Amino acid sequence: MQLSYLGKNFHGWQIQPNATSVQETLNKAFSTIFNEEVYTIGAGRTDTGVHAAEMWAHFDVKNPLPKNAAHKCNRFCGPDIAIQKFVPVADDAHARFDATARSYEYHILKAKNPFMQDLAWYCPYPLHVEKMNEAAKFLFDFEDFSSFSKSKTQTMTNNCKVMEAHWEEREDRLVFHISADRFLRNMVRAIVGTLVNIGRQRQPIESLKDIIAAKDRSLAGESVPAHGLYLTRVVYPKEVFEWQMAK
Amino acid sequence: MQLSYLGKNFHGWQIQPNATSVQETLNKAFSTIFNEEVYTIGAGRTDTGVHAAEMWAHFDVKNPLPKNAAHKCNRFCGPDIAIQKFVPVADDAHARFDATARSYEYHILKAKNPFMQDLAWYCPYPLHVEKMNEAAKFLFDFEDFSSFSKSKTQTMTNNCKVMEAHWEEREDRLVFHISADRFLRNMVRAIVGTLVNIGRQRQPIESLKDIIAAKDRSLAGESVPAHGLYLTRVVYPKEVFEWQMAK
Repeated sequence: MQLSYLGKNFHGWQIQPNATSVQETLNKAFSTIFNEEVYTIGAGRTDTGVHAAEMWAHFDVKNPLPKNAAHKCNRFCGPDIAIQKFVPVADDAHARFDATARSYEYHILKAKNPFMQDLAWYCPYPLHVEKMNEAAKFLFDFEDFSSFSKSKTQTMTNNCKVMEAHWEEREDRLVFHISADRFLRNMVRAIVGTLVNIGRQRQPIESLKDIIAAKDRSLAGESVPAHGLYLTRVVYPKEVFEWQMAK
Repeated sequence: MQLSYLGKNFHGWQIQPNATSVQETLNKAFSTIFNEEVYTIGAGRTDTGVHAAEMWAHFDVKNPLPKNAAHKCNRFCGPDIAIQKFVPVADDAHARFDATARSYEYHILKAKNPFMQDLAWYCPYPLHVEKMNEAAKFLFDFEDFSSFSKSKTQTMTNNCKVMEAHWEEREDRLVFHISADRFLRNMVRAIVGTLVNIGRQRQPIESLKDIIAAKDRSLAGESVPAHGLYLTRVVYPKEVFEWQMAK
């Protein structure tokens, strides 16, 4: 299934005790609508307050989905989640393990905007975009991003392969585009926070290189707020979606 | 001054007892920041929940505004209002009486969108845009819009001169653009509600003509929700803004 959600009222994607998550909200809605217990598995976690413009998840059901399943689920899962479509896939297809890349965007507003208050971060300081773009290129030179990871994580390695990292300037905002095979918790917001320090000319362009090389989270910039961050794309091998036709 | 606001948390522009209005919020903020009693006068009312992408207002002060006045006010008037600029004008300039035209937009989403839930109305029915555009042309043939007015109003006449009225189709939404010298309370939302009935093919294109001619509010369609409506432009004679240069 493809879905999007506003992160504001969720403690991220993943189920956890005593907090509302996207995953739990979907499990409850689907279990009711499909009349069997449904457990959704997402392409990855998103942190508290982070949005998803394009998220993918899978689940197993015994019975075929009813007609207009997306429409029914949309009426049942609250205003903060929208389901774009359900796609039948092979039994062994997996939303997380099959994904080969993820893309995120971080949106920084240049001026106060009441309509975007939950949808982008307003940075009141002038930012030097060219310097931020120069610095972003260093991200391609490294694999170990421990400097941008939460210190307590259960991951085996902190290695990521960054495939895209650049700033786009629009009329009302700056948008940071980053793609990688995987991301560490909090990684994008810590990278953006460091790049913003460079854009504010509080530290030189090359400092990003030193920060990554040091593998020390305490050197990186403060994480920027969650409400500017969007998961925008998850890439799967095309065979996943061709399964139905091949059947 | 030019400003914008998210309508969601306001009972419209105009001051009223026991309800939060944009006007009162600004009066309080400005009186504190400018250290004298300030009373703002807007280009017109907006109804409860209606947004303004471009609103204008004026006020009188004894002392010149401090440097960075807009920045200071933006820090003080809450997240739902943004002040774009202050412009000095002649003593007799008037935000409401000098305005020669206003423009509104009404945004209808084609699909559920969590990011737009406060910013546009999602209409779950297919709409026939060509028919809605055909019908909108009848608005140019009339002056008395009593059929689209709240029954209890204090206005002298219900005459408006409509100068623009058409639907624009975008990828994710339909946008209705309407401009007139003045608007009656609730007028745009009642017109859009009627056009939506025509777009749903529940009534013929020509029905709009009959509804306007009848001057009877009970014949028009139900008003569409406020959160899709934006005041987008107020037109003033250019002399108003040239005053400072001519001085």
